Formats: sequence, structure tokens, C-alpha cells
Amino acid sequence: MQIAILLYDRFTALDAVGPYEILSRIPGAEVVFTAAKPGPVRTDMDSLALTAEVPLSEVTAPDVLLVPGGPGTADQLRDEAVLDWLRAVDRATSWTTSVCSGSLLLAAAGLLTGRRATSHWICLDELGAMGAVPVPDRVVVDGKYATAAGVSAGIDLALRLTGRLAGDRVAEAIQLVVEYDPQPPYSAGSVATAPAELVASLRATGLVVG
Amino acid sequence: MQIAILLYDRFTALDAVGPYEILSRIPGAEVVFTAAKPGPVRTDMDSLALTAEVPLSEVTAPDVLLVPGGPGTADQLRDEAVLDWLRAVDRATSWTTSVCSGSLLLAAAGLLTGRRATSHWICLDELGAMGAVPVPDRVVVDGKYATAAGVSAGIDLALRLTGRLAGDRVAEAIQLVVEYDPQPPYSAGSVATAPAELVASLRATGLVVG
Repeated sequence: MQIAILLYDRFTALDAVGPYEILSRIPGAEVVFTAAKPGPVRTDMDSLALTAEVPLSEVTAPDVLLVPGGPGTADQLRDEAVLDWLRAVDRATSWTTSVCSGSLLLAAAGLLTGRRATSHWICLDELGAMGAVPVPDRVVVDGKYATAAGVSAGIDLALRLTGRLAGDRVAEAIQLVVEYDPQPPYSAGSVATAPAELVASLRATGLVVG
Repeated sequence: MQIAILLYDRFTALDAVGPYEILSRIPGAEVVFTAAKPGPVRTDMDSLALTAEVPLSEVTAPDVLLVPGGPGTADQLRDEAVLDWLRAVDRATSWTTSVCSGSLLLAAAGLLTGRRATSHWICLDELGAMGAVPVPDRVVVDGKYATAAGVSAGIDLALRLTGRLAGDRVAEAIQLVVEYDPQPPYSAGSVATAPAELVASLRATGLVVG
């Protein structure tokens, strides 16, 4: 089973690495990090690069596609080569998935038209404007399309996907291996629970923490 | 404020990237990934490499040190150059931290002797044998030493650390940016909640999911 994770300049590291940490542990899974140009791909915070091992042209029929988000999504929305690649590999996948603003890329490729999907909370309106039916849930599954909310939601998506791909027992084993027993010290992780003025402030700065 | 994250062959990606995603967003923070030899450093699952930007010799006085874990920890425990580096930079830090089996490295460097600390659940006995006082909590703080349990616990550690370094308001903002509102689909994330036979099985395989 091949799992392809797309990388591009200024993606958000945890969008990709959270799911990777889960999915790479499925027995028989082969994860491939792919980008337009192989080599180090820099994240949005600039101080980290992940290596893309193979060019998009060499990834033609993955079983699972995962598209991370990040500020760099905006540039990819206008990159016809990337959108063509997404459409092409989607024809082969059994699951097409995204984390955070990665769902905007799937929508731009026309893959989410009329489908229920989610994204980072700050992107839900844009997702709707692009033809999807935005749902403010942490993970949304519509047919073979599974989308996750912002950044850390990719971990929850990946565990659910693992259950579908390999069974609950394998998913539970992986959850225990990565000791995923979250204990956030604050309750500000969603727009439903965070102080309203904090939400407003981050909307105003475009998620830059001041 | 310089935050140094140590990389070494066969570290676990999420141990490093979870905290990175949080800590890199603190205003004024500069994160540096460092390794004995700069360049791509391969994770335990082999299909991913993160780039170490600078050699250990160029990181001499970080404010915060973060040591991830992974199967590769075992080799580092015998690497005197790495242990010397840990002891040297610890003299400069305001926080010395670890995720998962990274605490074994801190212990091997003599930094946790007599201190309360945690680690991946499978490593707690070894941590005790190395002179620390093992505590099966998700995050343990003893003086300037903050240790986290396995893999995903680094996210909780980093949010707590952010609160101490930059205040609760900044930590809450970052939690909302990364939409950290975890909703694990299973309750197998700790030895306290996972089926006992699953814990036994993973102990027997050394965390390899069968």
C-alpha cells in the first residue's frame, strides 16, 4: 500500500508529520514524500526542511493521498501542474485526504465539489466558496474523501483512516505506540472553546501570534 | 531566544516536529535543528528525513534544549561526543527538555540523577535504572528539566513550556493556530486505558505493530 504525502514550499510541518507518524506504522505501508522538485522542502516557519524523495511525475498511482496545508497553499492553488497531478492520482486512490488548508487544494482541483469537507477554521468560508460543503468538524469523511481541520487534526484523521485501512486493532496499537493520550494544558484549541477575542485577533493577523 | 532541537539517526519524527510546531511560533523564538553532521537525518520509519542545519559544535548556548526520542536513542547513549554536548549546553539553558526516550539521553548525560522525569511508557524502568525517579505522567517538570511521555506527548510539553516562556495568552493563541482540540477515535493512548494484552504484545515486539 503506497501512501503519498505532497510537500510544497511553506507547508505546515505537523500537517504532514502527524499523519506520517501514524500511517507509516501500518504493516505493509510504504510512505513516499513527493514534491514538484525532490530535495529539501522548507516549512512555513522556515527553520525546518523535510526531504521530498521523489518528483510528482514518479508518483502515479498511490493508494492513499495526503495533502497537508499551510500558508504555501495559496501559491499551489494557481499551480496547474500540481492540480493536474492531484486529479490524476485521485483516479487511482482508495482514499484522498487532506489536513488544514490542504482541502483548499483538493477543492481547487475540483475533487470536493458538492462534497462535505473541513479545513482549518480560518479557511472554512473559502472552502465553501470553492464549491465544497464546509463542515466545522475535526474530521469529515465523504465517500473516499477524508479531510481534517487545522494542523494537529491530521493525527485524528490518520488514526481513523488506519482503522478503515487496517482495522481497529492496528489503529489502537499505533495509538499506544505514539502514546496519543492528549492532555492539552489549555482549552483554546477550537473556535468553540477559545476566547472570542483571541479568535478575532488571529483572524486579523492571519494566524500570526503577536 | 534560541531553541535547539537535537536530531540523530532513527529519531521519531513527531517527537521533534510536534514541539517544533508549537515552539517555533513563539514571538522571538529561533529554532535550530542540530546534529553531529548537518544535512538530512533519517527517522526511525526510514521514509522521512529532516534537515539538520548546523553541527552540534555551532550550538553552544541555547536557551532551550529539546531532545527527541526514538529507536536511535540506544546508539546515542554510548556516544560520548553527544553526551558531552548535552552536558555543555545544559549549562547554558533555562530549560532542558525531552520527549519519549530522549529522557534516557539526558539521564545518560547525568542530568536527571535524582530528578523526577518521564519517558515513553516502555522506557520508564530503564529511566529509573539510569538514576532518575520515573513518574508515569504525560509531562513532568523538575526544576528546569521538563520531560514528556511518548511521541505525541511533546505537543503537550511544548504548550506548557510556551506558557512558562511567553505566558498563557501566547500559548493559547498557538493552541488555536494549530487547532489542538484532540479527538482520538480510540482510547488506547496510554497503558492505563489500552487493553492489557495490547500493552503486553507491544512490549514483546519492542513497539513494532504486527
